[in-house]
Amino acid sequence: MTIYEKLDAITQKNNSLLCIGLDPIREKLPAHLHSDPDPFFAFNKAIIDATHDLVCCYKPNTAFYEAEGATGIDSLKKTCDYIRTTYPEIVLILDPKRGDIGKTNEAYARFVYKYLGADCATLQSYFGGESLEPFLRDPEKGAIIMCKNSNPDSGEFQDLLVDGVPLYQKVAEAFTTRWNTHKNVWLVIGATYPDDLARIRQIAPEVPFLVPGVGAQQGSVEQTVRAGLSANGNRLVVSSSSGTIYASDGPDFADEARAQAAALRDELNQWRS
Amino acid sequence: MTIYEKLDAITQKNNSLLCIGLDPIREKLPAHLHSDPDPFFAFNKAIIDATHDLVCCYKPNTAFYEAEGATGIDSLKKTCDYIRTTYPEIVLILDPKRGDIGKTNEAYARFVYKYLGADCATLQSYFGGESLEPFLRDPEKGAIIMCKNSNPDSGEFQDLLVDGVPLYQKVAEAFTTRWNTHKNVWLVIGATYPDDLARIRQIAPEVPFLVPGVGAQQGSVEQTVRAGLSANGNRLVVSSSSGTIYASDGPDFADEARAQAAALRDELNQWRS
Repeated sequence: MTIYEKLDAITQKNNSLLCIGLDPIREKLPAHLHSDPDPFFAFNKAIIDATHDLVCCYKPNTAFYEAEGATGIDSLKKTCDYIRTTYPEIVLILDPKRGDIGKTNEAYARFVYKYLGADCATLQSYFGGESLEPFLRDPEKGAIIMCKNSNPDSGEFQDLLVDGVPLYQKVAEAFTTRWNTHKNVWLVIGATYPDDLARIRQIAPEVPFLVPGVGAQQGSVEQTVRAGLSANGNRLVVSSSSGTIYASDGPDFADEARAQAAALRDELNQWRS
Repeated sequence: MTIYEKLDAITQKNNSLLCIGLDPIREKLPAHLHSDPDPFFAFNKAIIDATHDLVCCYKPNTAFYEAEGATGIDSLKKTCDYIRTTYPEIVLILDPKRGDIGKTNEAYARFVYKYLGADCATLQSYFGGESLEPFLRDPEKGAIIMCKNSNPDSGEFQDLLVDGVPLYQKVAEAFTTRWNTHKNVWLVIGATYPDDLARIRQIAPEVPFLVPGVGAQQGSVEQTVRAGLSANGNRLVVSSSSGTIYASDGPDFADEARAQAAALRDELNQWRS
């Protein structure tokens, strides 16, 4: 099954555009988990079990695991293995934002696909599309390219004009045409820039968008859905992390995460029709 | 001591512009190391002990450690700890090419500086300078920004013209002025583009350059040194990885790495005067 087909299937089955970002931070975990032999995995597993019927994707960001060193990488592997074996229909996005020359990207691809078994990886475009070949060659694996990011100052370089259009648009054009021969490219566009989201959707009607920035960063859910749905009415993956996973820091954290996830899924669906 | 001062001191002490990239690949290690409990660390330690008086920097690229999962991260930590404690004057560059929004970069900085204790990290600029604040705030820690990379197709985006100048020049200008208030920014420029190296040296006369691309990628040592030296005649760090560390795959690998490192150091110095 291609990665686009896998995303369409789970979006339909769970009737959900929601991706939960699994970004554990030691200081923010519920107190009762601190005595667990693997607090990060215990936290993630509880969130996953409580929300698996409400999401289309899970997205661990590697930074939060690396911050704990080798033990964090162990927790990350356990998390990825658990998602892949227990809920294999859900798209597993690893979020490491990697990018290097081709030879080095081969090593990164080994980490993402062989070691962790993820379905997709988030990637940087600065070295050019040729360098990302280890991530672009398999239609079953998604290459999610940074296009227009959600942070307030993302425009410093991304909005620079090249031939009269912003750089992020040049990136979108290159990766949805020249580098999308295997139909596995996705783009990252922040919910905080709904006009840019609409502009890129016109250029790339069929490509999945991964959209962070609702919740803490205050992107509008309504504007995101109105501007971001693909030609088939799906392929818009809206990511929520701290607003969902840290909804409570008590023993009820997983139930509260479920309540938040259900509310956001329903809010997203409200604007789909 | 600021990171610029640390680099100047070791460049002078070891009379060397050479950085050795510590990029272990399981299949390429000498056969007799495969039975070692930690082949990557055993390999790195032998190379480091054989070359420490010939270099200004060591540079492990995280990709090659991540490819081995959590055990690779353990080897990376042992390698960083060994360099830091045994040869503290040498600049330890971690090469992870990270870049994300500010909150996530805080977690990456924890990995690079708290867990591994590196002196510098290589970074992506696409999210803008503001997002890199966790890497820019400490004058003792170097933020090494991707500017013009060594791979053949790096120009796909890096050479796009913005206001009549290539994007990589815009990145160089921003990070050597606006984002260099703590005098800790470095730039990466490939030896395969000596004209671009010369152009950026005019813009940034005092900033250290990290230059990959001599050796396997066939950048010219002579052109690199002529174009790349800073105003004080140093601050040009030329990185060699596979050409040095895989000079032999026999039991003499460390001796052969030393011979290759000495030859490259001397070739670099020949063009300095």
